[in-house]
Amino acid sequence: MENKFIKTKIAENLYLLRVSDNDTKYFEALWEIPEGIMYNAYLIKTKEGNVLIDGWKKPYSEKLLELLKEDLKDLKIIIVNHTEPDHSGSIKDILEYTKNKPLVLGTKMAGDLLKSFYKIDINFKQVEDGEEIKVGEYTLKFFTTPWLHWPDTMVTYVKELKFMFTCDIFGSYGIFDSVYADEINFDNYEPFIRKYTSTVIGAYKNYIVKNIDKIKNLGLEIKMILPGHGLLWRDPEKIIDYFYKIGNESIRSKKVTIIYNSMYGLIDPAILFTKEFIEKNGYETRVFKCTDKERPYISDIISETTDSSLIIYGISTYENDVFPIAKYILSMLSNKVNNKIPIIIITSYGWGPVVKQKVANIIKGTKFIIVDSIEFRGTNSKDDEKKIEEALAKLL
Amino acid sequence: MENKFIKTKIAENLYLLRVSDNDTKYFEALWEIPEGIMYNAYLIKTKEGNVLIDGWKKPYSEKLLELLKEDLKDLKIIIVNHTEPDHSGSIKDILEYTKNKPLVLGTKMAGDLLKSFYKIDINFKQVEDGEEIKVGEYTLKFFTTPWLHWPDTMVTYVKELKFMFTCDIFGSYGIFDSVYADEINFDNYEPFIRKYTSTVIGAYKNYIVKNIDKIKNLGLEIKMILPGHGLLWRDPEKIIDYFYKIGNESIRSKKVTIIYNSMYGLIDPAILFTKEFIEKNGYETRVFKCTDKERPYISDIISETTDSSLIIYGISTYENDVFPIAKYILSMLSNKVNNKIPIIIITSYGWGPVVKQKVANIIKGTKFIIVDSIEFRGTNSKDDEKKIEEALAKLL
Repeated sequence: MENKFIKTKIAENLYLLRVSDNDTKYFEALWEIPEGIMYNAYLIKTKEGNVLIDGWKKPYSEKLLELLKEDLKDLKIIIVNHTEPDHSGSIKDILEYTKNKPLVLGTKMAGDLLKSFYKIDINFKQVEDGEEIKVGEYTLKFFTTPWLHWPDTMVTYVKELKFMFTCDIFGSYGIFDSVYADEINFDNYEPFIRKYTSTVIGAYKNYIVKNIDKIKNLGLEIKMILPGHGLLWRDPEKIIDYFYKIGNESIRSKKVTIIYNSMYGLIDPAILFTKEFIEKNGYETRVFKCTDKERPYISDIISETTDSSLIIYGISTYENDVFPIAKYILSMLSNKVNNKIPIIIITSYGWGPVVKQKVANIIKGTKFIIVDSIEFRGTNSKDDEKKIEEALAKLL
Repeated sequence: MENKFIKTKIAENLYLLRVSDNDTKYFEALWEIPEGIMYNAYLIKTKEGNVLIDGWKKPYSEKLLELLKEDLKDLKIIIVNHTEPDHSGSIKDILEYTKNKPLVLGTKMAGDLLKSFYKIDINFKQVEDGEEIKVGEYTLKFFTTPWLHWPDTMVTYVKELKFMFTCDIFGSYGIFDSVYADEINFDNYEPFIRKYTSTVIGAYKNYIVKNIDKIKNLGLEIKMILPGHGLLWRDPEKIIDYFYKIGNESIRSKKVTIIYNSMYGLIDPAILFTKEFIEKNGYETRVFKCTDKERPYISDIISETTDSSLIIYGISTYENDVFPIAKYILSMLSNKVNNKIPIIIITSYGWGPVVKQKVANIIKGTKFIIVDSIEFRGTNSKDDEKKIEEALAKLL
């Protein structure tokens, strides 16, 4: 797919600058995103000069310069809500292109990071939580939102527009023709938000709650939310409520995520039995298997477990230990999903039954609850099927 | 590529049954093998009936039955040197096809595993270390070789032929037209043996030494080594010596393996500088990078580090911790390579310099030696380049 670069008018004097990135296979060098991702920057034209809010990833700098062109001559301010280079990566090229040394606004940490990332001499002004800056007919107001998703992060509220520019917060993966989230069905869009939020911000879920509470308590009227990824929200309540539910871990679907690894297929009959029993009980299943032919996307596993009612983890032992990829996935889930979701472990072992305790060690300190563990040597017996049924019956 | 199934005469009354497996993307559901793998079974025709040594992976059972056909009518013995299902996976189908209930020979653990893996009722006879069994004009002699690569493992020596059937031991990845290792250049074949051995048996390197010493001390004349994967050895000394060197960790090339992860390219200039400095000093480099577009094969990383003189690990921090994939790779190296190889760590951090101690914790208890750690925020300075030069100069 071609990458698309657009500049679209959102309101009087306000433009969305958006690139559709089909090149990134692994967002943050970690998350598989065949669905791609968009980076949104914003331009506000004021009587006193132009304001650029955030930017794009470095490889698209030149295209951003092309789209901005004349606007850069009169660039007065660059707001850096968040220094992660998917947003700040174009700043060096922009500063080199404009000779007028615009003021760069951000938190103290944003300033430090910009300098260390790009070794640039910038005209930086640190802004404080709640600070207001007037530029032409607009008032820019900044609120720090630490850990969403870095400690450097803030949002920018434009008082006269009642628009809030939130960078990573309320973002999503995916490439869309639409500009606004209300142009597509929420249920279709929701998986893209969930996947982005759980993978990128998952470890800081408690800060979602804190920061949303903080913003709500400001009592600001918000007419539009304009994030750094994904679509724009003309009905901010919808995304705020949804996002809050990810934060307080209350999103739950009638869905069971089944993850398993199988070196030679010995565990497969037990997993198939489990899957069928779950589906007979009216739950959807998502199955991720790690075999000699398939390796699932960790990004999808994280996203699907985030709103699951139950996790089944099928593990074949490896060298008398938990299978290495299962260890990796479990640590990722511990960091990114960490939620009061029950887990049933199903283990096929060769030399000895060691998995239960070792998995307990990996997820120690998380909110996950191992409710049962069914272990058998090689392939399962009828008796093991009964144990699986009993374990599931307690939960479904 | 088509999978090939061959039955080739190796000596009077002895046949190689070989399948070339192009279907397996991840051997053991772990190791990326675009080069494929071969499974070797062997048939000995004796005056008292046929002997089958090992077998193939389950998906190829039918093809194995086709190749064996008439031979199965008179199948007297199946030897299971090692129960891993890439060799034993065809046993159930073979037993169902032959009605004559052949004797299955293996160690006690092999018997237990066969029953639990395949839920089969077999005519199993446990053999002891050093035990001899006569069948027709041949004497089969068994020697246990525990942990090469499972605790169940043994080798079979046929006294009259002076041939040793070693299953996983002396095996390799790769698909070849040749039957014998001496038909191709050793230097070209060596990477396939190294990759197989380091990934599959790497964790049990000390057992390589123990078991080879044991076999050497038997004082047997060995005319040919016939492994379960890869090519056959008419010059056994060559592979025994090479294998021993992997075991006692004395294979070293004038080679430096550079592994790094880079979320946004900030660490790249430091890595490039390091690479060029190393090459200027006459060392080859192997570079594995984990970026938004590339993810290296862990199997190749393990193989290349196994005989490296130095490892450079470039790590960008992630959530104030070691980048998750770097953690995974480092634990895999700790388990599979674990060797007195010096490591230099190069770190680009954002929020804080935490990597050195955390990497030390991951590789704690291994033989790796962290000789230096160069940490910088964002991109490196000229001063950091000097530090890199100094660290390298001590080692190259």
